[in-house]
Amino acid sequence: MAEAKKFLYAFEEGDGKNKRLLGGKGANLCEMTRIGLPVPPGFVITTETCLDYLAQKKPGLKPDLIKQIKDAMKELEAKTGKGFGDPAKPLLVSVRSGAAMSMPGMMDTILNLGLNDETAKGLAAVTANERFVYDAYRRLIQLFGSVALGLADEGFDEVFSKIKQKYGVKDDVDLETEGLKEVCTAFLKHLDKEAGRPFPTDPYEQLELAVEAVFRSWMGKRAVDYRREFKITQDMANGTAVNICTMVFGNMGDDSATGVAFTRNPATGENRLYGEYMINAQGEDVVAGIRTPKPIRELRREMPRVYRELEDLRHTLENYYREVQDFEFTIEKGKLYCLQTRNGKMNASALIRTSIDMVNEGLISEKEAILRVQPDMLAQLLHPRLDPKARVDVIATGLPASPGAASGKIVFDADRAQSKAVLGEKVILVREETKPDDIHGFFASQGILTSRGGKTSHAAVVARSMGKPCVSGCETIAINHIAREATVGGVALREGDTITIDGSNGNVYLGLVPTIEPEFVEDLLVLLEWADDISDLKVMTNADTPESVTKARKYGAVGIGLCRTERMFNQPERLPIVREMILADTPAERQAALGRLLPFQKEDFKEIFRIMEGLPVTIRLLDPPIHEFLPSADELVHEISHLRELRNTVEGMANLPDTLKLIAPDLHERYAGNLDLITAGLEELKTRHLDETTLQAKETVLKKVRALQETNPMLGHRGVRLGITYPEIYSMQIRAILEAAAECIKERVRVNPEIMVPQVCTLEELKWVHRYVAKIDKEVEKKYSIKVPFKFGTMVEVVRACMRAGRLAELAEFISFGTNDLTQATFSFSREDAENKFLPLYKEHEILQHNPFEVLDVKGVGRLMMITVEWARKTRPDMKIGICGEHAGHPDAIRFCHHIKISYVSCSPPRVPIARLAAAHAKLKEKEYTLS
Amino acid sequence: MAEAKKFLYAFEEGDGKNKRLLGGKGANLCEMTRIGLPVPPGFVITTETCLDYLAQKKPGLKPDLIKQIKDAMKELEAKTGKGFGDPAKPLLVSVRSGAAMSMPGMMDTILNLGLNDETAKGLAAVTANERFVYDAYRRLIQLFGSVALGLADEGFDEVFSKIKQKYGVKDDVDLETEGLKEVCTAFLKHLDKEAGRPFPTDPYEQLELAVEAVFRSWMGKRAVDYRREFKITQDMANGTAVNICTMVFGNMGDDSATGVAFTRNPATGENRLYGEYMINAQGEDVVAGIRTPKPIRELRREMPRVYRELEDLRHTLENYYREVQDFEFTIEKGKLYCLQTRNGKMNASALIRTSIDMVNEGLISEKEAILRVQPDMLAQLLHPRLDPKARVDVIATGLPASPGAASGKIVFDADRAQSKAVLGEKVILVREETKPDDIHGFFASQGILTSRGGKTSHAAVVARSMGKPCVSGCETIAINHIAREATVGGVALREGDTITIDGSNGNVYLGLVPTIEPEFVEDLLVLLEWADDISDLKVMTNADTPESVTKARKYGAVGIGLCRTERMFNQPERLPIVREMILADTPAERQAALGRLLPFQKEDFKEIFRIMEGLPVTIRLLDPPIHEFLPSADELVHEISHLRELRNTVEGMANLPDTLKLIAPDLHERYAGNLDLITAGLEELKTRHLDETTLQAKETVLKKVRALQETNPMLGHRGVRLGITYPEIYSMQIRAILEAAAECIKERVRVNPEIMVPQVCTLEELKWVHRYVAKIDKEVEKKYSIKVPFKFGTMVEVVRACMRAGRLAELAEFISFGTNDLTQATFSFSREDAENKFLPLYKEHEILQHNPFEVLDVKGVGRLMMITVEWARKTRPDMKIGICGEHAGHPDAIRFCHHIKISYVSCSPPRVPIARLAAAHAKLKEKEYTLS
Repeated sequence: MAEAKKFLYAFEEGDGKNKRLLGGKGANLCEMTRIGLPVPPGFVITTETCLDYLAQKKPGLKPDLIKQIKDAMKELEAKTGKGFGDPAKPLLVSVRSGAAMSMPGMMDTILNLGLNDETAKGLAAVTANERFVYDAYRRLIQLFGSVALGLADEGFDEVFSKIKQKYGVKDDVDLETEGLKEVCTAFLKHLDKEAGRPFPTDPYEQLELAVEAVFRSWMGKRAVDYRREFKITQDMANGTAVNICTMVFGNMGDDSATGVAFTRNPATGENRLYGEYMINAQGEDVVAGIRTPKPIRELRREMPRVYRELEDLRHTLENYYREVQDFEFTIEKGKLYCLQTRNGKMNASALIRTSIDMVNEGLISEKEAILRVQPDMLAQLLHPRLDPKARVDVIATGLPASPGAASGKIVFDADRAQSKAVLGEKVILVREETKPDDIHGFFASQGILTSRGGKTSHAAVVARSMGKPCVSGCETIAINHIAREATVGGVALREGDTITIDGSNGNVYLGLVPTIEPEFVEDLLVLLEWADDISDLKVMTNADTPESVTKARKYGAVGIGLCRTERMFNQPERLPIVREMILADTPAERQAALGRLLPFQKEDFKEIFRIMEGLPVTIRLLDPPIHEFLPSADELVHEISHLRELRNTVEGMANLPDTLKLIAPDLHERYAGNLDLITAGLEELKTRHLDETTLQAKETVLKKVRALQETNPMLGHRGVRLGITYPEIYSMQIRAILEAAAECIKERVRVNPEIMVPQVCTLEELKWVHRYVAKIDKEVEKKYSIKVPFKFGTMVEVVRACMRAGRLAELAEFISFGTNDLTQATFSFSREDAENKFLPLYKEHEILQHNPFEVLDVKGVGRLMMITVEWARKTRPDMKIGICGEHAGHPDAIRFCHHIKISYVSCSPPRVPIARLAAAHAKLKEKEYTLS
Repeated sequence: MAEAKKFLYAFEEGDGKNKRLLGGKGANLCEMTRIGLPVPPGFVITTETCLDYLAQKKPGLKPDLIKQIKDAMKELEAKTGKGFGDPAKPLLVSVRSGAAMSMPGMMDTILNLGLNDETAKGLAAVTANERFVYDAYRRLIQLFGSVALGLADEGFDEVFSKIKQKYGVKDDVDLETEGLKEVCTAFLKHLDKEAGRPFPTDPYEQLELAVEAVFRSWMGKRAVDYRREFKITQDMANGTAVNICTMVFGNMGDDSATGVAFTRNPATGENRLYGEYMINAQGEDVVAGIRTPKPIRELRREMPRVYRELEDLRHTLENYYREVQDFEFTIEKGKLYCLQTRNGKMNASALIRTSIDMVNEGLISEKEAILRVQPDMLAQLLHPRLDPKARVDVIATGLPASPGAASGKIVFDADRAQSKAVLGEKVILVREETKPDDIHGFFASQGILTSRGGKTSHAAVVARSMGKPCVSGCETIAINHIAREATVGGVALREGDTITIDGSNGNVYLGLVPTIEPEFVEDLLVLLEWADDISDLKVMTNADTPESVTKARKYGAVGIGLCRTERMFNQPERLPIVREMILADTPAERQAALGRLLPFQKEDFKEIFRIMEGLPVTIRLLDPPIHEFLPSADELVHEISHLRELRNTVEGMANLPDTLKLIAPDLHERYAGNLDLITAGLEELKTRHLDETTLQAKETVLKKVRALQETNPMLGHRGVRLGITYPEIYSMQIRAILEAAAECIKERVRVNPEIMVPQVCTLEELKWVHRYVAKIDKEVEKKYSIKVPFKFGTMVEVVRACMRAGRLAELAEFISFGTNDLTQATFSFSREDAENKFLPLYKEHEILQHNPFEVLDVKGVGRLMMITVEWARKTRPDMKIGICGEHAGHPDAIRFCHHIKISYVSCSPPRVPIARLAAAHAKLKEKEYTLS
């Protein structure tokens, strides 16, 4: 027979690279052990073993596995010189989960296994610290009860509270040995009653049940939800490993401590040890945020030697991992242990700063620096922050646990957060502390505020990983989550009240505080320049006002990929002219109105050309149906009936003096002069605004508005169809572009205009518009004696344009995918209708994984794009091809665009930095890319 | 030097197959000559020579060509023993155009060339028929003037009329020699004055100018318009040949005649010589319809020998050409000449009858028979005819010149016909006679009515070729086209009055006469059975009522490719239940309403299954947005305000008795009893229909209607999206289908249902619906103890479904292209909006060649279809693929569908026969097919 399968590995024998088998934490412990870090001895049960367990029909560990565990425990006994279950020198172990992908707080852990009434007594004798032992014992009983037997924590908490009350203490730490012993006894009784079985006194039974519980937690609701939310597939992680590790104790007195630290500051990136610790405490005290810990710099004073060891540890870790590490340590009677380490989660600015620093320190390459920063994280830096000039009302201050500012209505639990967010409300989740069960509340909230816990508390860690603002440990807020209210300095906060939190300074404000645009940090500029050197894809912007164009250039856009012209039409001083143009009865009248629009439009383009200084400016000719510029029929009906009613009233009031004279001559006499005035005023009002001609003019407009109405405006009379039916409009715009360019050239401004035709479905349409362009080009050349350089191209946003790309490329010098419209046409979904009527249900039932208007549908729309690129480049191999739909700024879409060899993406100015970074990522990771 | 290029060929040397070079008529004359028909000698100038001429810069024929013409004329002189320009024995020739494609009447002809004052005298002496000679001479002068010199016919007509007046005669034929001589002199003078040059007396100058005129006519407006309208490309015909042929004369006295004939009756297909002739007349008298000719059977009596020769000629022609021939003949002093022959244009029923007959006679094969009939022609047979039971008012009767019935408003000229038709009006073109210039009027009209001309007049020939009804030679109608009116038997007809014509019996009716469905002719059945044996494509039908299903089966549909279910919902007794279902506040209420719909729906399906007897019945689950079943918001607003107003009125009237009592007590007393009754009635009206609850219920409906409104309903909440959001609806329909099938099986009716899901864009949607299907299938199996055989498939009408066809095919056992919606999505055109707003302009400017909703857009939509078929069959090689959009019945679309290997087309019942024939054509002509 073959040798028995290997279910587990000692830390010194496991392969530190094999996260799939050993889980992230287990592999790490093995690796840490191998590189000589002070890790307490232990072993890892593999993820495969977990899967085997989950696949088996009956509960209980297999005999083979039990045997290997026992053998490994014997080795631990040998290494530590202690005995598992030996009251004389008892060995305690922790049992922790750890999958291939980090899923912080999602699965279970049990500490202090090996304690029972006997070993507790023995340990108390060995350590001469009875209080610590019973504290550890009561922790074990509670954790074992909740994790292995599924009991509620609240039951234990209640028992504990009663005993604290009895002894008149408030904090756990103030409860003396007698009290803790009493707690242990009461816990054992509570467990027996609630679980219907006694607490197992056999340490091996404890161990086996704990391992089973960890295995089962892989399929627990929290873990499954987390994997779905973060899209962790079986390929990425399958099953959890179980890490069994010798316990070391930070709560063995004032020469013991426990803490968590980052090798650099995860909020700012500063290159200094950063973290927190608690004297005489166990690790979960820090994580759960029950006591507020001390900043690590104080350890330098309290335990200078250990602090130096920590500094050494920090450098060892970074030199080996070449990443900022987030590690847990315990000091047991002055000896430092490193319990675990992992790559530190940081906010965007810290990530960027450490990336730049680590390149400068020679630790990592520029490419590695780029890949450390997920493009979407930059959104944190580019989102608004609180306006410093705003008059604000700070009601409390906590710890700045995750940077950024957010406003929203208060909710006191995660379920409420979710149910409100579904309705589109912005909420702030306010809790004493958060737990893994609250994860859905994080997703639903704008930010998180807790009254307890430090900067490494659950709330802080999770919020940072999501890039959501968090203020933690804001102790001045008293929360009553049953009554759904809180008080702070006499102010009552109810559910639904709006507050603002600033995770960068820990402040909490009453009401909504205005925000301002973010500054662009210097470090980011450096990183993005490195990125640009790597990318194939260029990043342009969608912008049409001088402000947005300026901003986009600042953010590094190398051109405007989409300059819409309809917003220019909508400006207050222009709209009346635009309406006049639309309502014109003859081409001549229309021409006259357009003549008055021309100077405006020309000035728009000149301003933009000046800002862009010779970079490409792609101007899309008018796209939306012209009825969008007219008042709505409903509005007009309302206005007309209102005016008619007003006229009736005015007419009625004209009789007022006579009536008054009749029924109250004295009043009439008293007010006669005023009455005359009023009557005259009314008469004038009637003549000026309420005469039949005015009303009829409005009715004529109403009639035209009705005539322009369409059944499906999205598929109606718009884009180039409009350009062909009203050639005057496009002619005016083309003239404005070319004259603006000519005038800029005269001013010695370099220009690079591109004329882009929307909604094209056949080459004939392009030809038609091109004829105007050619004609106007000649006229402009004659007028200014300047040959304006420009390109002519088309949007590809109609499916037929994809099918005919080879033909369109005969005339189009560039094409740009309008993925918004293309997505609508590909799905036959009207965005407006779909998002209101059925898309939410489609997402809920996972009929669609994403809203295709947010995430580019690579399988449908993407296939069309691939076909288009192929056919277009067959005709014109050097064809410049862009994408300017809303998807263009999203990293997944950018990877796809890189893959199909698109030339540039064009996105909104705030997404330009994200797109630049994503373009570099796409290039660096192109080999890994596969189309699903 | 090489030998000079050959510009012309004598009839006996030209290659009768080379229509490209010699034109249709020229090749024909050569062929006719070669097979021994009595063709007058002559020669053909090639189409290449025409193109050379049109390409040259200066006018005038090249010397080389002139030399060849002169040589050829010398040969003619030798063959005929006459001399061109020789007064002693003058040779006269005709000059006729003739391109590779027949373009009847589109180009120019000049007869009697060679006459001048001298030869006229000579010819008069030779023939002893002075009257004929001057008649010929005056014809030459006029034709030469109009064709070669571009003078208006009206000028000549005026001159002629004056002289007829002078001699007191009405018909041309009554004018004696002296008068005709006077006409010639006057014509020569008129020509000299109008043209600014004298009539050329040199016969060779006449000939050269005539040849040039014919060449030029190729680029004349009429010819260019005709080619564009009939899509004659340069590949099909380029340039016209010129046929120069010895003149023979049907107007040499009462032993001479001219005529046109068909080898079989082109209106009925009867296998008998059919035609018309005129004694003592030239050919153009027949064609122009100036005199009404005699039916050819009378020739048997008038010239029995010649009639027998004609019978022989008919057989010679058919045996050689294996086609019904349309030929012109002239009898010159008892000798028969055949001047030209071509394939006869026939209406559909004649074509079919002759096809069947000729197969039976062994003349042609079944395949040839099928290919003779253009599928679209069958529409003539399948269109409604006048209801024989209609009370009709025959106002006149003319010749049944082109079968079929049509109603429309009278117009008196082609331009009016066109301008009215553009506005969507149906018109009947009413003229004394028609000319080639009127061609656009034919296209625009429903039918043509002429007061002069026979069944081979211009009007008759053109109408038949277009399959439009025509009544010709309706002499009792007096037309005054200047005043735009006509009279017939005292009835005045004005422009805009509606008439109906029946081209099958020559009747003209006042007003619109109702029509009935056509009968299905026996011959067509035979032809279509032959066709079915050949086709790869099956023909199914789109039908959803027992009537239409029955009709489609009669027409040979082998299944229902699209059974819509929404029409079933719209039936009067069901609509209220459907509305109840839509307006239900809870799923339970909805379920209850659906429960009441189920029996109706089941009965619908059972009826259809019974009629189809085991043929496939593809049932599409509900597709349109549900708001289509509700009253429109406007309607409701109107109704509510009307009811409110009514209530006010009723309330006001309640005071009537009291008011009356006060102001007219005597009246009150007299009517007191009635007044009480009225008051009670009003009170009841108010209670029953005008109470607040009723009004509020209507307002609730209005609110729901508003909530269901969509911005772009075409891209909205419909099809499978509806099926997923309201699962009860699809469940009811699926249950109705499967229960109906089970109950039919119990009745021993074979069933073959297919369930088709509309608007699918992703496999997940199909899976979702399939889950209901599987569940209900089990329930039905249990209820009836019968396993219902059925297929499950999807429409492909959303672009994304095309892109995901490979995936959809994993679950879909069949797919069916919905090309209506697919076209909308591919073009981003909403049909309704496009056809109202910009499509007319797009067609006018030829931006689109066709309305893509009428003609399948092979280049765009077709490409998507090809991709879909390829991907779908990759997953499921035997995938059944259909098309059920409106395009499916059109021959061009059918050719394309055959090409991309679609399994079946499904069209409306009347198009089923067309599709069957087109499917056979597609197979027979598949080698010639290329995608443009």
